[in-house]
Amino acid sequence: MDSNENRKNDASYAEELDELSTVDLALELSDYEEEELKELCETHEDEELAGILEQSELKTQIRIIKILDNKRILRLFSYMSKDDIVDILGEVTAGKAKELINLMKEGDKKIINQLMGYRDDCAGGIMTTEYIKLDSSLLIKDAIAKIKEIVPKTELIDTIFVVNRSKKLIGTAKLRDILIAPEEDKLESITNEHYIYVEPETDQEEVSLLVSKYDLTAIPVLNKNKAMLGIITIDDIVDVMVEEHTEDILKIGGASKEETIDSTILESIKLRLPWLFVNLITAFLASMTVKSFESTIAQVVALSSIMSIVTGMGGNAGTQTVSIIIRNIAMKKVEFKDAGYLLGKQLLVNLVNGATIGAITGLIISVIYNNFYLGIIVFLAMIANLIISGICGILIPLVLAKAKLDPALSSTIFLTTATDVLGFFVFLSLANVFLPYLI
Amino acid sequence: MDSNENRKNDASYAEELDELSTVDLALELSDYEEEELKELCETHEDEELAGILEQSELKTQIRIIKILDNKRILRLFSYMSKDDIVDILGEVTAGKAKELINLMKEGDKKIINQLMGYRDDCAGGIMTTEYIKLDSSLLIKDAIAKIKEIVPKTELIDTIFVVNRSKKLIGTAKLRDILIAPEEDKLESITNEHYIYVEPETDQEEVSLLVSKYDLTAIPVLNKNKAMLGIITIDDIVDVMVEEHTEDILKIGGASKEETIDSTILESIKLRLPWLFVNLITAFLASMTVKSFESTIAQVVALSSIMSIVTGMGGNAGTQTVSIIIRNIAMKKVEFKDAGYLLGKQLLVNLVNGATIGAITGLIISVIYNNFYLGIIVFLAMIANLIISGICGILIPLVLAKAKLDPALSSTIFLTTATDVLGFFVFLSLANVFLPYLI
Repeated sequence: MDSNENRKNDASYAEELDELSTVDLALELSDYEEEELKELCETHEDEELAGILEQSELKTQIRIIKILDNKRILRLFSYMSKDDIVDILGEVTAGKAKELINLMKEGDKKIINQLMGYRDDCAGGIMTTEYIKLDSSLLIKDAIAKIKEIVPKTELIDTIFVVNRSKKLIGTAKLRDILIAPEEDKLESITNEHYIYVEPETDQEEVSLLVSKYDLTAIPVLNKNKAMLGIITIDDIVDVMVEEHTEDILKIGGASKEETIDSTILESIKLRLPWLFVNLITAFLASMTVKSFESTIAQVVALSSIMSIVTGMGGNAGTQTVSIIIRNIAMKKVEFKDAGYLLGKQLLVNLVNGATIGAITGLIISVIYNNFYLGIIVFLAMIANLIISGICGILIPLVLAKAKLDPALSSTIFLTTATDVLGFFVFLSLANVFLPYLI
Repeated sequence: MDSNENRKNDASYAEELDELSTVDLALELSDYEEEELKELCETHEDEELAGILEQSELKTQIRIIKILDNKRILRLFSYMSKDDIVDILGEVTAGKAKELINLMKEGDKKIINQLMGYRDDCAGGIMTTEYIKLDSSLLIKDAIAKIKEIVPKTELIDTIFVVNRSKKLIGTAKLRDILIAPEEDKLESITNEHYIYVEPETDQEEVSLLVSKYDLTAIPVLNKNKAMLGIITIDDIVDVMVEEHTEDILKIGGASKEETIDSTILESIKLRLPWLFVNLITAFLASMTVKSFESTIAQVVALSSIMSIVTGMGGNAGTQTVSIIIRNIAMKKVEFKDAGYLLGKQLLVNLVNGATIGAITGLIISVIYNNFYLGIIVFLAMIANLIISGICGILIPLVLAKAKLDPALSSTIFLTTATDVLGFFVFLSLANVFLPYLI
């Protein structure tokens, strides 16, 4: 405990642990042993430890919470914002969470219980209940005095929320306007009554789109009666965007969003196997399509080496389309009703690309295998499969989105099933028709 | 021009065109005809039109610029921030840009020319030169007076940059601390000298990682001598994140980041064909591998329908790995030196997954084709190909990143080339060895 005392008395030490160092220290903790974490808890005062806790990864937060007794945890919570507390409570056992909530003050208990009710990927789950809310009838000078008073207890942001007497939001005021407005004016004179808001159930990705579109620094969360429940600040939106970006890439690649670089071998196996099983089913579908043409292949073995070129190119062309559609759905730039227009354009694009790729492939094949008709079959099958891939590439993600399923998760598997099964079918059927010319 | 006059005289109209309506109007403009755009330019005053211009899409900006004469453009520029002006100048013809820059005031000319020198996906290209920079020796009350004076001309953000006499950045001060500090204190007393900064050449994705990691609202851009060149605000970072997210998804899907939902048919064809050609080469590589085993396949036609199951599952398992590695490289959580540790883990995961999927597939195949050895071959080939896919899934993106190439762009194509070519090779070689038992 000596080093503890030393540190406490060392003013420059406390000064050095500013917000930036807190982040660095917090992120290092995931590598700490149990003993080191215990020492950290003992050598840091409540406010500092709360700051560290807020910035650490979830796994680390749980480890720290386990070390501390309830009294200390509640003291730490008093320095933390409610949304961070709720995130932590959501990860400990239900019993522990209940125990801690019951020890809280009545007011806090009510807010925490309300926040715990929201899914953590919607506006209610990411909003904070600490923000500056002022009455519209305040004079500017009184508003400034109030702001100075509230500021130490909350994040200062450049948007102040202006409410009427019944606490309903009537608009927003910019801090810059407050600072330069005449002192005796009323706050309502600089209040902008045209504002964007979300409801607590709004999906976090939609919230981030609004913040990005309108360059907002904070967005209010209102209930059906337009009463303010909280706000979502842009720095939380940045975290949401990082999270959604990661999720999208992992989903498209068929990996689970829960898998991290630190997942154990057992976790990785468990998270990956289900997706491989789903893919195995589609692989068998394609395989059975080929099997039904076994007698054709037996007569022209060359087909076995050529057919995967046609299906592969269909998959590639379809993936190009799917990725554009998925992203535009996520950005709300495309929806089901656009299908007709998109399909028309897509058909032409893939007709041209199919004919180009098909002509080149057909030419090479007819030279390699010294058979003109084999080239013609490849040419026709390539056009057909690229058109199929274009149609599926548009319709699959749009239909999934319409059915409220995530197009990023399952579009590719439906697409490759279609381009594999139909690609093999078209190519081998054509081969069957031209069989006399191939033997 | 009547409606123009009417509008100008209508106070409530001007009031209504606030920041939010400006965004909505600006985004609608992409659907405007030439005539409508002209009317818009005529009916809006400079400041309003500048606001609209700043928020519209690049294509629309160029169309508007073409309508206006140089004098009006320069008047609009006077209401816009330098980074937005540079974005626009980057899109018009070089001649037009030069013409406009030459008409600017000397001070502006210098800044614009300097900004034009940076790539638009690096810190210098997205930074703004309007921000609040105060001398550390100022008294708090004077700092507040200065802030009130500067605020109408700049974005107010909660971070004030504190410089010394030679204009070098020495730290940052939070507006909240300035508002509540004793009036007679010096600014330096609340300055935090521990700050994060970037250089103008820093990649925008790296900037967004720092802003997200440290919950910053603005990050200063410094040259080698620590002199301030500008700042990047969090709302610009949000735009960067949306852009990088789109790019990543399109790249992984083999689509070009330049293709949008509004691209013409010709643009789409031009942007997609090159990627299809690259894929065609790898498809031929796989095809030639199969061709070299034609005599084996001729004796056991069943191989032709089974082989794509093995290669397909290798591709799927590899894509899972690749997507996790790509994302962790982007987030700077993984680099080349971690390859050894990652490979060890991956080998075990894919050994187990390969054995599981292989056993199931082998069992089904041996029943369908009524041949035990065929099942054994599938089992062994599946394990081998999943291990290959694991090794490639780790090494390909890490090596690409090490070579300063974008792993999101080309990892999948190298991966599927490997899993296809090696998958066919392993499976058909095994079939060759077991040939007597298969006929």
